Amino acid sequence: MKFTIKNKDSRGRIGVFETKHGLVRTPNLMPVIHPGKQTIDINKFGVDIVITNAYIVYKDEKLRNEALNYGIHKLINFDKSVMTDSGSYQLSVYGDLEISNQEIIEFQEAIKTDIGTSLDIPTAPYSTRAKAEKDLEITFNRAKEAKKIRDSKKMEILLNSVVQGSTFSDLRAKSAKDLSTLNCDIYPIGAVVPLMESYSYTDLVDVVMNSISNLPDSKPRHLMGAGHPMLFALAAAMGCDLFDSAAYILYAENDRFLTVRGSYKLEDLHEMPCSCEICDKYTPDDLRGMDKKERTKIIAEHNLYASFAEIRVIRQAIMDGNLTELVEERSRVHPTLLNAYRRLGDYSNSLEVYEPRVKKSAFFYTGSESLKRPEVRRHLIKLDELDKKRDLAILPPYKKPYSNHLPDNLGKFYVYGDEMDVDLDNTDFMVADIPFALIPLNIDEVYPLSQHESPSIKDIDGIEFVKNFLLDFVDNYSQILIHSHVVEDYQLDLYKIHPQSYMINFKVNDYDKIKSIADYQFGNGTGDVLFKDEIKIEKSKKTNKIRHIYCDGELVANMRASDSYFVLAKEGARRLHKAIKFPNNRVVVNSDAESFTREGKSVFSKFVVDCDSNIRAKDEVLIVNENDDLLAFGRSLLNHNEIMNFNTGQAIKNRKGFN
Amino acid sequence: MKFTIKNKDSRGRIGVFETKHGLVRTPNLMPVIHPGKQTIDINKFGVDIVITNAYIVYKDEKLRNEALNYGIHKLINFDKSVMTDSGSYQLSVYGDLEISNQEIIEFQEAIKTDIGTSLDIPTAPYSTRAKAEKDLEITFNRAKEAKKIRDSKKMEILLNSVVQGSTFSDLRAKSAKDLSTLNCDIYPIGAVVPLMESYSYTDLVDVVMNSISNLPDSKPRHLMGAGHPMLFALAAAMGCDLFDSAAYILYAENDRFLTVRGSYKLEDLHEMPCSCEICDKYTPDDLRGMDKKERTKIIAEHNLYASFAEIRVIRQAIMDGNLTELVEERSRVHPTLLNAYRRLGDYSNSLEVYEPRVKKSAFFYTGSESLKRPEVRRHLIKLDELDKKRDLAILPPYKKPYSNHLPDNLGKFYVYGDEMDVDLDNTDFMVADIPFALIPLNIDEVYPLSQHESPSIKDIDGIEFVKNFLLDFVDNYSQILIHSHVVEDYQLDLYKIHPQSYMINFKVNDYDKIKSIADYQFGNGTGDVLFKDEIKIEKSKKTNKIRHIYCDGELVANMRASDSYFVLAKEGARRLHKAIKFPNNRVVVNSDAESFTREGKSVFSKFVVDCDSNIRAKDEVLIVNENDDLLAFGRSLLNHNEIMNFNTGQAIKNRKGFN
Repeated sequence: MKFTIKNKDSRGRIGVFETKHGLVRTPNLMPVIHPGKQTIDINKFGVDIVITNAYIVYKDEKLRNEALNYGIHKLINFDKSVMTDSGSYQLSVYGDLEISNQEIIEFQEAIKTDIGTSLDIPTAPYSTRAKAEKDLEITFNRAKEAKKIRDSKKMEILLNSVVQGSTFSDLRAKSAKDLSTLNCDIYPIGAVVPLMESYSYTDLVDVVMNSISNLPDSKPRHLMGAGHPMLFALAAAMGCDLFDSAAYILYAENDRFLTVRGSYKLEDLHEMPCSCEICDKYTPDDLRGMDKKERTKIIAEHNLYASFAEIRVIRQAIMDGNLTELVEERSRVHPTLLNAYRRLGDYSNSLEVYEPRVKKSAFFYTGSESLKRPEVRRHLIKLDELDKKRDLAILPPYKKPYSNHLPDNLGKFYVYGDEMDVDLDNTDFMVADIPFALIPLNIDEVYPLSQHESPSIKDIDGIEFVKNFLLDFVDNYSQILIHSHVVEDYQLDLYKIHPQSYMINFKVNDYDKIKSIADYQFGNGTGDVLFKDEIKIEKSKKTNKIRHIYCDGELVANMRASDSYFVLAKEGARRLHKAIKFPNNRVVVNSDAESFTREGKSVFSKFVVDCDSNIRAKDEVLIVNENDDLLAFGRSLLNHNEIMNFNTGQAIKNRKGFN
Repeated sequence: MKFTIKNKDSRGRIGVFETKHGLVRTPNLMPVIHPGKQTIDINKFGVDIVITNAYIVYKDEKLRNEALNYGIHKLINFDKSVMTDSGSYQLSVYGDLEISNQEIIEFQEAIKTDIGTSLDIPTAPYSTRAKAEKDLEITFNRAKEAKKIRDSKKMEILLNSVVQGSTFSDLRAKSAKDLSTLNCDIYPIGAVVPLMESYSYTDLVDVVMNSISNLPDSKPRHLMGAGHPMLFALAAAMGCDLFDSAAYILYAENDRFLTVRGSYKLEDLHEMPCSCEICDKYTPDDLRGMDKKERTKIIAEHNLYASFAEIRVIRQAIMDGNLTELVEERSRVHPTLLNAYRRLGDYSNSLEVYEPRVKKSAFFYTGSESLKRPEVRRHLIKLDELDKKRDLAILPPYKKPYSNHLPDNLGKFYVYGDEMDVDLDNTDFMVADIPFALIPLNIDEVYPLSQHESPSIKDIDGIEFVKNFLLDFVDNYSQILIHSHVVEDYQLDLYKIHPQSYMINFKVNDYDKIKSIADYQFGNGTGDVLFKDEIKIEKSKKTNKIRHIYCDGELVANMRASDSYFVLAKEGARRLHKAIKFPNNRVVVNSDAESFTREGKSVFSKFVVDCDSNIRAKDEVLIVNENDDLLAFGRSLLNHNEIMNFNTGQAIKNRKGFN
């Protein structure tokens, strides 16, 4: 099965895959259809795919015959993609099933399911380790058997392989790794419903992150039983592509309304809870006056409208690059959900790998949780790596970009460290701000260092975070000059004002600026190599922003207006290739792709044989062959892991090739 | 005009008022209708009231004649309530108007507007003080003149009096106070649109809070020009009852979609942004393919669906008692909005007065901003007032209610202060927890001390908040025994373990518990007076919770299961009346109401002549006459300010009277 990623944000992906019955966009929600009991016409909510239960069909003679004769699609009156579950839920509730793994696979093929499932064992959360391990072995063997059956019998069915392992992080990881070797089509994460029912969302985060981090990026993942729209954004940001909802009907049967803010009981409702057709048309009293069956149907429709609206909001957020902001907002609806998001902060390292380098949206600080965002971590690591001058001057934040709004007289500076004469040429200038701690003025227009907003009324977490980083970071310098506002804002115990405060000032020097940005973007020292000899900087007449940089008359790089990163020109790519060693910043393609690549055609994942592990989505990269000959340069659409993992789809959008 | 409050939360109110054309529920949104240019049928969104511009009608001969002949309702094809603005917006944009204050008032009466407006001067934010003062004088005089004209000519029109004063807090306060003396019908807060357009939401908070705190509680307030649903929850929580939306159509004309998460431009949309009929039916591409006029109409409809859905969500939140949680959630959509909510924290004292004592919903900690909530402040003040024993033992939080889940062996305690032998009878036991800092175990079932949830992963703000309170509070005690977990959680520098740690334990003593709760509810010492002589405590057989308390065989009080506050019985009211001095806990009614009150009929605001300023909504209160004879007791529906300010509607739900 071919799964393609169209856009990314956090670990969330806008993707698409195809079954015999059409395209399925992700993230997506699969309404659960009870075969034979369905009361709602599911066709009207923009549904791409549904899920139903093969075992229930199998057990009922009438349903079974109809499914065998006319197919599952006809049975449930749905002509797009159908996924079937195997009965493992029934297994977990009722004990042994009267069907074998082989039989249920063959049955799913026979009824023409698009995506079928082997008979996994859903080990409940907080099981004993012994049980979880034993169950896992069976689950894996059945998944392996299913794959073998399908391949040997040349079945058309696509296969789910369910990750299990209870709440043991290492078992989830093992399960995911083992199943990955089978190369199945979709990877559900199973047995998490009890965690969701008991609001154990931090454990859910651990289970999902340990599963997904060990699953292939090139396959969709399904968070089984996740049907509450309150959870969709968090789950999507962890990399879940599919949800399924029996909740829409189960909640409706209990007169409960699903919303992204939680659930409402009809008996407590004074007003209808959303903007949907149902909520506009009826009042709670109207519904209370109806007969149960009609009411259930109507509430179920609301539940689907509300759920699919959230799916759309999530997709839009991924396109806009503000999925994390959406998650941060949604996590306020319940302290346990906020706790889960706080726990996700512990996975910042792993999230950083998937976070695109630049986004359409600004970074919004929505509370102290934002301090743990991967973008912050990424910047602080870069800061540590940059070359340092002798002295550091720390300024308070001005209007952004800071470097364009510095006053002529900066004011008073306290001194820390060695006390020496001020030497402006030997001083790094940085602004202290929440959450990026220190922002060098030479690179302050680079995303997200200008493209972020924080409340001006600070929280202590933010203050402590910046202060702690700052106090460590100043050890890199001999003399540190700290502006009096910074001393006040971060309550630094400094008492001595530098006698030459009056001579401290900063003016942007375009040559320093382009070199610093290059160092920040491509690594230390690259600025000097990219931009040398006779440098000519061309600016926009309208905005006065740097646009093109020529060296010795040849275009080396363009600066992108939206995020101030460099887009290389041919000469720039050549210089960068010479300056930085293999495999840095490189994507290596095999010989099959060499001529296409040289012609400027984009690089597909399947041709990539190696790749710098520091590559993130939206990076400018060099494309080379296995001898490190420069073939082309372009913009990465995916990160290192994804490029290496995918066998289909574009990896690098080629800018220009070298013939 | 009669305005009644049905329910309250934070400063928000569910209310209702009546015009000649029907009831208007609050909070509510008044779509702005441009007379003659209206393209949308406004009747279908559940609209109670609209606003249109009398000056525009006046200036256009055709419109004027039609309005004069057939009335404004006919002109705009709307048969419910209509409010008209006077042209002051036009004044602010185009300078002088060709109409006098008297003329515009008379014109509004002539066209049968339900609610008209005098010709106020909208002073822009950040004006000079001289200008703001001068404008304010004119605004006030015109409001006064309008009132005089209406009264002398016995007009039917209801009157708006607009609060102005630019961004000067004291001028806003003065304007509000002065206008209050006129006893007009509705108080709009004017000239705030530039603040909203420039995201200056902290200044908006200052303007609104300084206005509303000086306006009568008994009149609806209208935040003029507030049409973005993103702001409704915050504005409602500050006490704004009415909003008006021209935004729905203005944004639509610019292809922009309003949502509680901000605005979306059609050109950026990949998915439709909400669950409404429009968002379900169309895709962004469908809309992009339409002609402009049709598209504008459709987007305007979405904008109204989204806006009215938020009005419903706000009303539901007030009923549920979680309006603050809604505001905290909404404030995450933009850092400037979060900043505004943080600023609102500075008004915690004034908000506390309006915060009901108990609510249906639990208190949710959604981030460090929750530390400034009035409920927290209220508890900490109560804590300071309570009687103290010699020693204090501080425990970590257990499952709630804490007192029901203490282990037999509590563990190790560090000692602080004087080191003495442990004396359990002389020790207060409290749990340290975020955000309520210290919760005495004797009262830990009282709302919201059990009814709150916080993430277990703590933020530094929360830790510092509790720590700082605790370090101050322990000064009230000689010896402080602090559990080792508390020492770790709050990084207290304590090193000495009390040698008698093993003997420290706490068992709920029901007699202490009922007395402590009474002290917390009614004031220090009341427990001893309410519950003395032969006390008999009756518990629920099912839940084992205290239900009834008898003394000498007579029922004194019942404990409410949901929040563990006392509901007095007759004997309890008598004892409380004797024990606490006038005017504490009392509502004083005039002689007209005495007999009804003694019969157990509820107390209406107009009969109240005095009232304890500490009374909050949902308090149990004593009802007395001017000689302080006890007439009855009941539950307050409003707070002190509201009871005194209202002249209509119920103030106290009488439980029982004394004949």
